Amino acid sequence: MKQFISVNDVTDINALVQQALVYKSNPLADRTLGADKRIGLLFLNPSLRTRLSTQVAAANLGMEAIVFNVDKEGWALEFEEGAIMSGNTVEHIKDAAPILGSYFNMLCIRTFPSLKNREDDYSELYISQFIKYCGVPVISLESATLHPLQSLTDIVTIQECLMAAPLLTKAKPKIVLTWAPHVKPLPQCVANSFAQWVNAWGGADFVITHPEDYELSTNFTNGATITHNQDEALQNADFVYVKNWSTYTDYGKIYENDPRWMLTEQKIGLTNNAKVMHCLPVRRNIELSDEVLDSPNSIVTQQAANRVWAAQAVIAAILRNNK
Amino acid sequence: MKQFISVNDVTDINALVQQALVYKSNPLADRTLGADKRIGLLFLNPSLRTRLSTQVAAANLGMEAIVFNVDKEGWALEFEEGAIMSGNTVEHIKDAAPILGSYFNMLCIRTFPSLKNREDDYSELYISQFIKYCGVPVISLESATLHPLQSLTDIVTIQECLMAAPLLTKAKPKIVLTWAPHVKPLPQCVANSFAQWVNAWGGADFVITHPEDYELSTNFTNGATITHNQDEALQNADFVYVKNWSTYTDYGKIYENDPRWMLTEQKIGLTNNAKVMHCLPVRRNIELSDEVLDSPNSIVTQQAANRVWAAQAVIAAILRNNK
Amino acid sequence: MKQFISVNDVTDINALVQQALVYKSNPLADRTLGADKRIGLLFLNPSLRTRLSTQVAAANLGMEAIVFNVDKEGWALEFEEGAIMSGNTVEHIKDAAPILGSYFNMLCIRTFPSLKNREDDYSELYISQFIKYCGVPVISLESATLHPLQSLTDIVTIQECLMAAPLLTKAKPKIVLTWAPHVKPLPQCVANSFAQWVNAWGGADFVITHPEDYELSTNFTNGATITHNQDEALQNADFVYVKNWSTYTDYGKIYENDPRWMLTEQKIGLTNNAKVMHCLPVRRNIELSDEVLDSPNSIVTQQAANRVWAAQAVIAAILRNNK
Repeated sequence: MKQFISVNDVTDINALVQQALVYKSNPLADRTLGADKRIGLLFLNPSLRTRLSTQVAAANLGMEAIVFNVDKEGWALEFEEGAIMSGNTVEHIKDAAPILGSYFNMLCIRTFPSLKNREDDYSELYISQFIKYCGVPVISLESATLHPLQSLTDIVTIQECLMAAPLLTKAKPKIVLTWAPHVKPLPQCVANSFAQWVNAWGGADFVITHPEDYELSTNFTNGATITHNQDEALQNADFVYVKNWSTYTDYGKIYENDPRWMLTEQKIGLTNNAKVMHCLPVRRNIELSDEVLDSPNSIVTQQAANRVWAAQAVIAAILRNNK
Repeated sequence: MKQFISVNDVTDINALVQQALVYKSNPLADRTLGADKRIGLLFLNPSLRTRLSTQVAAANLGMEAIVFNVDKEGWALEFEEGAIMSGNTVEHIKDAAPILGSYFNMLCIRTFPSLKNREDDYSELYISQFIKYCGVPVISLESATLHPLQSLTDIVTIQECLMAAPLLTKAKPKIVLTWAPHVKPLPQCVANSFAQWVNAWGGADFVITHPEDYELSTNFTNGATITHNQDEALQNADFVYVKNWSTYTDYGKIYENDPRWMLTEQKIGLTNNAKVMHCLPVRRNIELSDEVLDSPNSIVTQQAANRVWAAQAVIAAILRNNK
Repeated sequence: MKQFISVNDVTDINALVQQALVYKSNPLADRTLGADKRIGLLFLNPSLRTRLSTQVAAANLGMEAIVFNVDKEGWALEFEEGAIMSGNTVEHIKDAAPILGSYFNMLCIRTFPSLKNREDDYSELYISQFIKYCGVPVISLESATLHPLQSLTDIVTIQECLMAAPLLTKAKPKIVLTWAPHVKPLPQCVANSFAQWVNAWGGADFVITHPEDYELSTNFTNGATITHNQDEALQNADFVYVKNWSTYTDYGKIYENDPRWMLTEQKIGLTNNAKVMHCLPVRRNIELSDEVLDSPNSIVTQQAANRVWAAQAVIAAILRNNK
């Protein structure tokens, strides 16, 4: 693997999932693979799980990880070509990226969307400019429109559950991605990315449900069944992925925030005793009720713990490619 | 040792003190004890000595330490059970803690009191919720009401001084904890914790002195002599621990800030050439005069340097218990 | 070498340059020199290249580096002797520095000038107080008036270019330091330090050019030719170092900001196809035009990448001195 920006960088999803599960059973299986290599973790936005799991993953491979909070420890970067830099941006990505590339063997970057202009966000200018100028392999720690380390983790977790409790009555699990209410406009990244990965993986009967006006880009959802009827979507589901996102069409807004879309125990009753997933952080009793999150149906902790193994499989694949 | 939240987690204070002094004379005595283990240092509030000394202590044991400033690099956590999270808190401790526990073998946490509501602060909700949900041993880096790594360091430093210059005319040293003025309301943690440890240690004639209205909780002070007469308290003292705290009874206030409570050279004259201690940071010429801090009586630098060995003894004890 | 605060701490500039180039060709040549040693990197101001390159340099020597952003993770320090600390400063450098010295074998410090009072800034109070009280070797990561790691890097980079393409028609390269416009008042550090090092190195025909009113301190410039005519200065130059600085005489101001001082391709035409240098971050199309920065004349990326080897040579020299 040369980089990890989207599912399109992965030639064999199942092999990557298996590698992650190998690392889960033996974290130090490749403890010298990254010896004398350095990975830079650059954050233009805050992070808890992504940062810590990636640090742990790198350490398991014997690789030195250095974290740099660009937003807090550094200064504002300029991404526009030809900018006359008389404003608030202090350094152009054209100057910063190649230097970071000279200090590290691999770079990881988190950069959120503005949610102000769809065309800008969906052009993925920030991460594209990093990739263009840094000269080393790049791993996305969540970009304006996608969150591939999360999605790989999600597939790993689903696969793990299916191995622990094989389906008896159907060939493929039914996976439902359901919109949930929130208190502020959030990116579409996690939903886009989950849809993209589940579709590419192909191992599921995949349904997406959300209120009207919350359509996601068909670039990612194509292949899934889409419905505005949450109850109908949840029928017989084996996995329910809960996530809020702001509007895509009339971009970055909260149109409706109907609390009836919150996932409750009653709604779990509609499913095939489904496993409940969420990328975290989750707003309790807004997106998901306490009763669901604290029930055996919730696998959010297992899912978040798996972030380490997904990151480790990705870093290892890139290290092997660059040997 | 299973955790380190207060002196109650310690079965043998003197053994722990001796271990710290062993590490002082041979920092790398157990350089592989923490190999392939990870310790997470989580800060909900700022830290200098505590953070750096704990990082150094972990490194001396061959353990990887990762620092995460939750307040600055992460987001606001929710600690109330059943909260409807429609406000400013982004993630519930019930969701964050078990995941942190999955990434680390041991977690260290700093969380200050609000000083607004005594019942809330003294319930130690924050650190208790961490312990309840994280699933790995927890070390307090200072909580709402206690600062045990500081207090262990204090006993280590007193013991070290007594070994270097044994008492000639009395069986036990006289230790005085004296309130000092400050410019803003501070927690009672350091004073509570020092009182708790000196009382549990039992090796001293222990006196606490403070202005009226600055009574500490008897949960911690029981066993000490308490007086409002600082001069009387200082008579023949061997160690004087200087510290400000805000009011406990009418909670979190500054009632009186009489500059005559500042510890000066003249007051040292009342003592048995006492060693002067302070946990730092100290407001010079408010809490303690320059003349005292810059005199041979001050052992504040030795005391702060000992933070490393106290932290190292605690981490080692927990590592040994979890082997 | 005992410390690294200015060129005056270096006995043999060429030997230090050669050591940096050795590390560039073999980064792990001394991979155990710093084993079991710790270096603290303290930032009172933001940093990108300096922080990361110093971390990488320390790691290459097998030394553990710990970063502490004093301004963000800690609290305001007091530097004035005798201060009555009733204001915003929380801890005196007299108390903080010796403790930091007890935790680390070596300390690196970045502290910017206020640009409000020249006498204060040029007294270098902050870094001097650190050195006075910390008790271990100190490396400047940029102080109020100097930036020696940058300047050593600059000489390394010039030397490297001269080795790759030896001069044919003259004994010494012509090096021009030129002022450039900026949008806000900047310190004189980089310019002072570059002037000090090039003069001490002695290997160049050295010219400084700037608008009237932007004179630098003769303490650093003595030995250079100074002119207000940029075009004349650039004639036949082999290296052009571009940098803005605020006024030194009427201190810390922007007097004139004539855009004609921006270095453009046309001006490069006046030179001997000069290599263009800048310490970064650079304001594109304000200090330097895109056409120059994106041309083969620009060596700013090579220069910034060399920060690692300069830092590594300095740390190694101090480690060897303290063996």
